[in-house]
Amino acid sequence: MTLGKVVLVGGGPGAWDLITVRGMHALQASDVILADHLGPTAELEKLCDLSAKEVVDCSKLPYGKQVAQERINEMLVEYAQAGRMVVRLKGGDPYVFGRGFEELQACTAAGIPVDVVPGVTSAISVPAVFGVPVTQRGMVHSFSVISGHLPPEHPGSLNDWSALAHTGGTLVVIMGVKNGPAIAAALIDAGRPATTPVAVIQEGTTAAQAGFRATLGTLGDELIRHEVKPPAVIVIGEVAGLDSTS
Amino acid sequence: MTLGKVVLVGGGPGAWDLITVRGMHALQASDVILADHLGPTAELEKLCDLSAKEVVDCSKLPYGKQVAQERINEMLVEYAQAGRMVVRLKGGDPYVFGRGFEELQACTAAGIPVDVVPGVTSAISVPAVFGVPVTQRGMVHSFSVISGHLPPEHPGSLNDWSALAHTGGTLVVIMGVKNGPAIAAALIDAGRPATTPVAVIQEGTTAAQAGFRATLGTLGDELIRHEVKPPAVIVIGEVAGLDSTS
Repeated sequence: MTLGKVVLVGGGPGAWDLITVRGMHALQASDVILADHLGPTAELEKLCDLSAKEVVDCSKLPYGKQVAQERINEMLVEYAQAGRMVVRLKGGDPYVFGRGFEELQACTAAGIPVDVVPGVTSAISVPAVFGVPVTQRGMVHSFSVISGHLPPEHPGSLNDWSALAHTGGTLVVIMGVKNGPAIAAALIDAGRPATTPVAVIQEGTTAAQAGFRATLGTLGDELIRHEVKPPAVIVIGEVAGLDSTS
Repeated sequence: MTLGKVVLVGGGPGAWDLITVRGMHALQASDVILADHLGPTAELEKLCDLSAKEVVDCSKLPYGKQVAQERINEMLVEYAQAGRMVVRLKGGDPYVFGRGFEELQACTAAGIPVDVVPGVTSAISVPAVFGVPVTQRGMVHSFSVISGHLPPEHPGSLNDWSALAHTGGTLVVIMGVKNGPAIAAALIDAGRPATTPVAVIQEGTTAAQAGFRATLGTLGDELIRHEVKPPAVIVIGEVAGLDSTS
């Protein structure tokens, strides 16, 4: 039996045509696609002929999150061992909080060849399509992309929010809707002004895109008032106040 | 005369097929392409038929950097006013230290319609293709992308390197070859251990890709020993020590 292969593909922020050309070619050459609910899953047929392919919706796997991830790792290995060309289609970029490297490690440990196709991360592209650049000359020389899935005081958090408040750069928080109010409070406590501009974009680059501007001081209330639901990107810093006409 | 249009396209890190499908379609629909030396410029003909298109190599514009940028802004407006479909093809993502937003502002101020097509940034994709993920579960909850074009002590630097040393996350420095030794020293002075793993990747994703691993303490010497030249990406943090087989 010939061994198959696994390609970890970054599907981009949601719009079907924000995947890379290399990613599209990998989809076209695949036998099996293991897809997340993020990325271009809804319009996959625009990228490749699905009639001869098996598509597994990994967001529908039973069990909890950790077990589901272990099951995904197993499936990648099993399909490749059965000689199939497998695409693991992930939202955004595989290595931006996507557990892509864990999947690479699982495959490599089992002797399965793996390619990685980078993707357009939602952390940069979602603000861009909404009209907010993460950098602007003379304004910032850095931007930080931060997972907000844990609140600042959580013992498991690996973020030093006090240091992040003082980088001098833009902060882009993803997976931070629920903890947005606590994150804003932590940044203000650390000395970032409450007047700092903020932009919030929900379901960016898709037909359902919605967004608004606020400040660090009003972010908590505005997240509730706009009933923001994940996935959403929160941009904090002077760039969030930029207007394309000025 | 019908007004043309400008599309700011992120061309990705260098490999021709790491542009997005949307970016490729914009190239195919264009009359004029204003290209930088970064991005997929060398193999443009793989993405579109160039026979009926005008291609301007913006890296060959005379004058200094600032004048050249003003000239690019003018050309974007002039071509669009002449009814042409213009693609401004940039390396990486248009809004990651690319002056893309300035180009958008110049066009918008002149009444020219502009679309922005996000791209795969070299800051994430170059480490990925070399084997280094900017995030890994249990290791970091953030990564910062930093322009190293000014040394830490420069009065024009907008980076607080002391804060950046303490975010708890991965640091990705671009445009930092020349100032790499000073940046490493500043981070060590601020308390980041000299044993922190580092990866350096030159001309990532292209046929000329070369890279090596080091530590924060040896980075300065290694940049010189390997005769690293721009463009290069420097990854600083525990993720730079990850091995795909472990």
